[in-house]
Amino acid sequence: MQRRRFIRQLTVASAALGGGLLAGCRDRQDGAEPAAVASKKQYRWKLTTTWPPNFPIFQEGVQRFAEDVKTMSGGRLSIQVYAGGELVPALQSFDAVSQGTVEMGHGAGYYWAGKIPAAQFFTAVPFGMNAQGMHAWMYAGGGLELYQEVYRPFNLVPFPVGNSGVQMGGWFNKRIDSVADLKGLKMRIPGLGGKVMAKAGVNPVLLPGAEIYTALERKTLDAAEWVGPYHDERLGLHRAAQYYYYPGWHEPGPMLELIINLKAWESLTDDLRLIVQTAAIAINTWMFAEFEARNHQSLRTLREQFKVQILEFPPEVLRALKRHTQEVLDEEAAKDATFKRVYEAYEKFRREHDAWAEISEESYARARKL
Amino acid sequence: MQRRRFIRQLTVASAALGGGLLAGCRDRQDGAEPAAVASKKQYRWKLTTTWPPNFPIFQEGVQRFAEDVKTMSGGRLSIQVYAGGELVPALQSFDAVSQGTVEMGHGAGYYWAGKIPAAQFFTAVPFGMNAQGMHAWMYAGGGLELYQEVYRPFNLVPFPVGNSGVQMGGWFNKRIDSVADLKGLKMRIPGLGGKVMAKAGVNPVLLPGAEIYTALERKTLDAAEWVGPYHDERLGLHRAAQYYYYPGWHEPGPMLELIINLKAWESLTDDLRLIVQTAAIAINTWMFAEFEARNHQSLRTLREQFKVQILEFPPEVLRALKRHTQEVLDEEAAKDATFKRVYEAYEKFRREHDAWAEISEESYARARKL
Repeated sequence: MQRRRFIRQLTVASAALGGGLLAGCRDRQDGAEPAAVASKKQYRWKLTTTWPPNFPIFQEGVQRFAEDVKTMSGGRLSIQVYAGGELVPALQSFDAVSQGTVEMGHGAGYYWAGKIPAAQFFTAVPFGMNAQGMHAWMYAGGGLELYQEVYRPFNLVPFPVGNSGVQMGGWFNKRIDSVADLKGLKMRIPGLGGKVMAKAGVNPVLLPGAEIYTALERKTLDAAEWVGPYHDERLGLHRAAQYYYYPGWHEPGPMLELIINLKAWESLTDDLRLIVQTAAIAINTWMFAEFEARNHQSLRTLREQFKVQILEFPPEVLRALKRHTQEVLDEEAAKDATFKRVYEAYEKFRREHDAWAEISEESYARARKL
Repeated sequence: MQRRRFIRQLTVASAALGGGLLAGCRDRQDGAEPAAVASKKQYRWKLTTTWPPNFPIFQEGVQRFAEDVKTMSGGRLSIQVYAGGELVPALQSFDAVSQGTVEMGHGAGYYWAGKIPAAQFFTAVPFGMNAQGMHAWMYAGGGLELYQEVYRPFNLVPFPVGNSGVQMGGWFNKRIDSVADLKGLKMRIPGLGGKVMAKAGVNPVLLPGAEIYTALERKTLDAAEWVGPYHDERLGLHRAAQYYYYPGWHEPGPMLELIINLKAWESLTDDLRLIVQTAAIAINTWMFAEFEARNHQSLRTLREQFKVQILEFPPEVLRALKRHTQEVLDEEAAKDATFKRVYEAYEKFRREHDAWAEISEESYARARKL
């Protein structure tokens, strides 16, 4: 049964699409030859992202994904990568890939919350699972299947590609000592986190990364969350606001996503599909590792060189945001059946994962501090 | 510079071997065609593991790795997988792959601590980094380069393939209420953890998984650590001992490894090398996700159905083991120059990673509990 589950899980994309080609490959016995799938057909695809050009880790990782796929496929699948705005505006990549104008896109599910409210569960849930939990849910807990099912009506096949780990809570132009200090702030914060902040009196705004610095510097924004030390330093946010808060309660393990046009995906041979799926997992790992390895240095630079005030949100503020998170989740679930269904699946997995984390990661973290 | 670093990091295996083929591929501009590397040459390799036949996640993941490589390569690289003892005894796989009798092996670095003391850093360090830290070190912190450099004199190219996350502390035939309770116990515990236990008066033994149950059941052993709830339940260890301790202070994020014979690796074309490397990362992700998703259920079964006593080590015991860990690491470093060098690199990365974890994962974990 484990073996069955494993096959099913890993071939979800193909199985969900009715092809079952990969499942067929996996079921083949050792020693038997695979079908002659390595046809000479050349695919020349485009991939449009939501990121600024040359943006480290994000755009860089997508570029690497394209290079890996090309090398592994012996040049049969060639993907030209465009940054946000080069081919289509950053936040229109969803429509472009859905309509098939472009074969692939890279961004974050919560950017499309207006079209798919449930997509937010596949990016980040405030006070929800960290990256480790999200990966377990995706790759071994049924999450990926649900993710692909939810995107299917939009002619899209999504895969997790990239995770920043726990983000920072954001940049503020004043100290946040109480919930009252949040009221009236205009803040760049997307997804469920933005809705939670709205309950606390914040006016949340969704802006692509490239526009944050200018808005903050011109006081069009009072606050902004972007990613973490490594990226925020590069965007120069410390020159536009001086209080940098943690933890990123709103994005504890946010997943980035690769979206593929359904028809384009179906046109691939099964070896190319597996190459794309496998490269996606490898780049996901690489991006997360980069964040974990680079944030420390930028944090130190921000603190020591730029004299940024790096502060923890007061417990009172976090408690209020946690309460508002529950309100937001309940309200959204009441409005949208798909949101409700994904919420329930997410919560079931989260509770079980938390129970294990309690005697594994958490007990271990305590032991290290003794 | 980031781009440079990234290319270097990801092509370490090929670069370290002097070929630089993959680096060449990566440097190629978009749009240019890759060299005609997809030759029709067929490779038929063997892979021998240290695991029992049909062992879930471990042996299963290695089998999946072989299937993925075969599918992605259009059948050009076919790998026949053998469990421990089927082709060579479990703990002799290192020699078999080093000598080239078998092209690939799968196990854990600390099994070879007698030959490469530093290999233990590439499995688990007591009170050291968890899986998240290990992955960051490997894929973005220079760890993989060092790992491959250390194995090179043995004609081996290693890759991380598999991580169980924080393990359990082990099964005991009596309660451990104080350090005195450890004295004189004969315990299956490999690697540095075994050496630390020896300082506490334990007699540590290294046994392959398949032999643990019988030894514990026949009282040849008083205690044994294996993996975690999911695997330990399948091995039936709850029928041989009744106290199950956490956390796994000795193996907080143990990496499993794929080892490849150097000459065999060098014989591969660059597309096949990248396929192997990428499949290795994907399986690493899958194995870790499986552990994180499955342990909960087994933990509940052990507690509720089998009435196992699941207990946290007392702080006094953990403090003593932590003190002994420092003694062991210092002693080993004094005996072996390579151990010392890897220890220093590991510690440098660990300190930086811990500093970031303090305001990311740890601050977030606190916020969730408010």
